[in-house]
Parts: sequence; C-alpha cells; structure tokens
Amino acid sequence: MPEGGELPDLDAIRAAHARIAPFVHRTPVMSCTAIDEQAGASLFFKCEHLQKIGAFKARGACNAVFSLDDATARRGVVTHSSGNHGAALAYAARRRGIRAWVVMPENAPAVKRANVERFGATVRLCAPNVAAREAACAEVARESGATLIHPFDDPRVIAGQGTAALELLEAVGDLDAIVAPCGGGGLLSGTAIAAKGLRASIDVLGAEPANADDAARSFASGRLEPLPATTTIADGLRTTLAPRTLAALRAHVKAFGTCSEASIVRAMRMIFERMKQVVEPSAAVPLACLLDRSLDVAGRRVGIVVSGGNVDLDRLPWLGANA
Amino acid sequence: MPEGGELPDLDAIRAAHARIAPFVHRTPVMSCTAIDEQAGASLFFKCEHLQKIGAFKARGACNAVFSLDDATARRGVVTHSSGNHGAALAYAARRRGIRAWVVMPENAPAVKRANVERFGATVRLCAPNVAAREAACAEVARESGATLIHPFDDPRVIAGQGTAALELLEAVGDLDAIVAPCGGGGLLSGTAIAAKGLRASIDVLGAEPANADDAARSFASGRLEPLPATTTIADGLRTTLAPRTLAALRAHVKAFGTCSEASIVRAMRMIFERMKQVVEPSAAVPLACLLDRSLDVAGRRVGIVVSGGNVDLDRLPWLGANA
Repeated sequence: MPEGGELPDLDAIRAAHARIAPFVHRTPVMSCTAIDEQAGASLFFKCEHLQKIGAFKARGACNAVFSLDDATARRGVVTHSSGNHGAALAYAARRRGIRAWVVMPENAPAVKRANVERFGATVRLCAPNVAAREAACAEVARESGATLIHPFDDPRVIAGQGTAALELLEAVGDLDAIVAPCGGGGLLSGTAIAAKGLRASIDVLGAEPANADDAARSFASGRLEPLPATTTIADGLRTTLAPRTLAALRAHVKAFGTCSEASIVRAMRMIFERMKQVVEPSAAVPLACLLDRSLDVAGRRVGIVVSGGNVDLDRLPWLGANA
Repeated sequence: MPEGGELPDLDAIRAAHARIAPFVHRTPVMSCTAIDEQAGASLFFKCEHLQKIGAFKARGACNAVFSLDDATARRGVVTHSSGNHGAALAYAARRRGIRAWVVMPENAPAVKRANVERFGATVRLCAPNVAAREAACAEVARESGATLIHPFDDPRVIAGQGTAALELLEAVGDLDAIVAPCGGGGLLSGTAIAAKGLRASIDVLGAEPANADDAARSFASGRLEPLPATTTIADGLRTTLAPRTLAALRAHVKAFGTCSEASIVRAMRMIFERMKQVVEPSAAVPLACLLDRSLDVAGRRVGIVVSGGNVDLDRLPWLGANA
C-alpha cells in the first residue's frame, strides 16, 4: 500500500461507475461562448450541481455505501460533513435502506442541513472544529456499530468522485486540461486518476481559494501544511488534505491555481448570469482561477468539474453585507 | 385571412425551425422529482432560459429577420420591447449583419437593457406607455426605412416561438398537456398551433399572473379586455393580447390558469433551489399556476415552456423589500 493509504486506479473508478449508475445522474456538459471569451479558452462544464443532492458528493457516497457487505451495511453509516457529503451519505443510505448519522458543525448553512434531513438521516451538531466532530463520529460508531464513511480519506469515496471526470472525458475526449476545486482532495484525486488513466497527455489542475490554499502549499512542499484558520466563502473547500489525497495529487496533478474572494464572487455571478446555473461558491473556484490567470490555459480546451449548487439563496455573496 | 390577421400553421412552424436552426440552440428538457411531488404531476421543462439571449424570443426574432428579402433587410429592423424581444431582435440582426433599433421603456431592468446593447443595437428610451413606444418606433421607421418586427403580433414571430413546442414534443412525445406563460400571446399561440398540430389530443394551457389576467378574461369573453394597469413582478407578461393572438388562443387553448404574486416568487425560488436553474419571474408563472392548482393536471405528463432567465440578480424577489 502506498504511503498515505490505498488509492483507487482507473479500473476501480470504472467499477464505481457501474455500481452507482442506478443511483446518480449522468450530468450534462455545458459550454458558454460569453464565458469562453472572458476566460480566453474553450470551457466544458461538467454539471455536478445537477447531480442528486446538488453535488458530486452523491457519487462517492453511493460508491462507498453500495460497496459495504450486507451485515456491515445493516449497522448503518456515519460521517462528519459541512453539508454536501452529509446529504450524499443520507441519500445513499436511504437508497440502500439503512440508517445514517451525520455530524455537522453548528454553523453549517441552513440549506445544507435541510438537505441532510430530507433524506431521513439523523443530524448531530457539534462545535466547528476537527476534534469535536471526530469525537461525535466515534461516539455514534461506538453506540450503533455504524461504519464511518470519511468525506474524502477513503478509496471508495475517491473512486466514486472520479466517475464525474470519466463521464466528462467520454463526452469530450480531446481535452487539453481538466480543473477541479480542492478541499480535502477527494474530488481532485479521483479526477486526476480518471483523467490521467484515460488520457495521459491531459494536464490535471487544482483550484483553491487563496484564503484556503493548504493544498497548493502541501503540493509544493510535499508535506501536509494545514492552515490555522481559513476565511473563504467557498465553504466546501475549507478542509485540508489527508496523506492519502496528497499522495494522489503529487503523483498526477500538474499545477495549482488560487483565486481571490472577489474573483470567486465574480465567477459565481458570471455562471448565474451567463449560464443561468445556480452554483455554490466552491463550484465557481476553478473559473475564478482562470479569470485571475493563476492557471494558464490560454486557447486550450479545458474541462471544469462544477462541484455543486447548494447555496443559501437568501445570502448570495454579491448582495448587501456579504458583497 | 382570419379575423385578427394571418396565423402560421404547423408547416410554417416547421419551416421556421429549419430557417433558424443555425442561429438558436436546441435547448434541453429537464425534469425534477422534488418539483413533481409538489405539483402532483410529471413535468418536462423546455429550457428556453438556456436559449440564445436567455429567452425563447430568439426564435421568433430570428425567424422574422431571416424571412426578410435582402433589400428590405438592408434597411434594418426596429421594435419596442420591455427587453427580451429587443435583445432577440438585436441578436438576430447582428447574425444577419443588419442594423437594429430597440425602443425600450425607461423603467426596464438594467440586465435587459445591457442584453440589447451587447449585440450592437441602438436603444431609444421612451415613456412606459403604449402610445409613446409606438410613436418612437414609427419615428425610427420613418427615418431609416427599418421594418417593424412586432414582439408578438406577427405570423413570422409566432411561427418562430412555436418551434420550442415542436422540439419539446419531438423530445417527449406522449405529453397530456403543455403550459406556456401568456403576455402578448405570441409564445402561447405558437405553442398551441405546434402542439395541436402534432398531437390533437394534447391540452394546451395558458398561464398568467392574477394581477395581469387580461388574456384569461379575453379568452373567456371572446373580445380584447385590456387592463388599465398591471402590477406583477412577471415583467414579461404585462402586455395585452392582439386580435391575432386572441384568435389563435380561442381556437386552440383549453383553459387559462392564474396565480398570485407570492406563488410566482415561490415557484421561481423552487426552480432555483431544486433545479439549480436561473429563471425570470415570467418563466415561473406556469409552475406557479400548477402549485396554486388553478390548472388541473393531477397525475398527468405536462410540458412547460420555461420562457427565460434574464433576471436582475441584485433584486431577486424573495430578498429584502421585494419579499
């Protein structure tokens, strides 16, 4: 096993794709002339905001839940999540007919909490820090025998997330590059393994808010560089890498870009206005990096994984006090 | 010629479809389980908010502009419009390489004015009333020889708008009903002629804000019943029918539904939240009528023409003073 833990290969991603096909959407790929002009490149947006539960996380959670043997599955599953992975696990558990517990920070957006509860999962609130959420997860596991499905530090989850890139490259084969946002690195790891496996010449690029650039720093230094605090509106990207995802990124990613908070808002609004798509701030981070020119893709054909669309519509970041 | 003026038939709509194919998108059809549950029916949304210029109006304008002979086209085109038809005519004129003038009321939303100017059309502002806009149009026509392309009282425009329903029925053949919003009646007329021509058993239904229900009243009485004033957030539906569109609706439409302003906001937000699609208030009116149960489609398969997505993102109707 490589340092950091097992990683899926392309075959595992293909197997995941077959396993989850009955439970997730094959999302469309969109393009937009007006945004291409702004970015100076031909962009192909893989629309995971149109995925079940409104985010790519449905893929990894379904792969993990449907990989469990029956006896294990019957005891249920548990996770901690700022929201989308929690909703995804709740959805996957409901589809399999098992229980799910989701540990969430008290300050999670209302829309994300509602998204968990509508699938019948039990929410446990905890203080917004790593120690509190891990303690709460461990307690649930102890009480119920539920299996922990980590949001990204899990080869089944990474394989599931990689299926979005698999579909994108099936739809648009001749991409020069593919960009995914990076929080804990599950999506970017799966994207990288799928994309490099299918097309060795492709450049895999990571995108991060400058205010939460732990992955870019860790990628550069080769060791985990967690940040003491992050203050980005891209709430899905505040987490830090695990040794497993860092190993995957070091093996397959070419470069990282970072972007300002203002550019995230600008990119998000551009996607609303020009593409008429509702996306969450994290999903706008790749386009923000292209607009900031922190990733160089001039004139190229570039796939972008649009990670999710679960945004609080009462608090859009270009409005009022948030602007 | 029938009372009210010439109307297109299905063949004219098919010809329009072939004529405009190089210049407009074949938009996707979306569905959404969560909204189906709320509506109590299976809904198929024809996504004209993803059309060129962000609205179905691109279809009618392109058909009209590309129907002109060369000598006439060279003198340009002119119209009056609260926005989307103006943008559509500007777009069509640019694609044909001719000039366009658009007369707009001074109080049109900023996003709609910008949408006209980005295609190089000349905007003329006028007072927000019928007399002022018709005078301004006549003046432009006198000065330039430009052809007036009316937003809806024109058989070429009606034929173009009908192409959305043509595509929807090609994609989903077994619809029990089709619903379109009704302002001046161009979209609903074209939808009705296309849908009844392709599928005689289908119910064609009109949707209107209760605050601007002139079409429902006129449809019931058989004569034009313009309202003295309308106060709906569905700014695309404030116009009244023409004799031509009333004749088409009386011939083909089964019933009208109306909805409250609160239901328009609720339906619009539901489309943002559940479908992750940015739509304008007018586009949410059909769903609002279904949620209000003013149209009875329980358990049926229903097509909905989602008319457009040009909404001012700084003034979403569920926010602040608008709510």
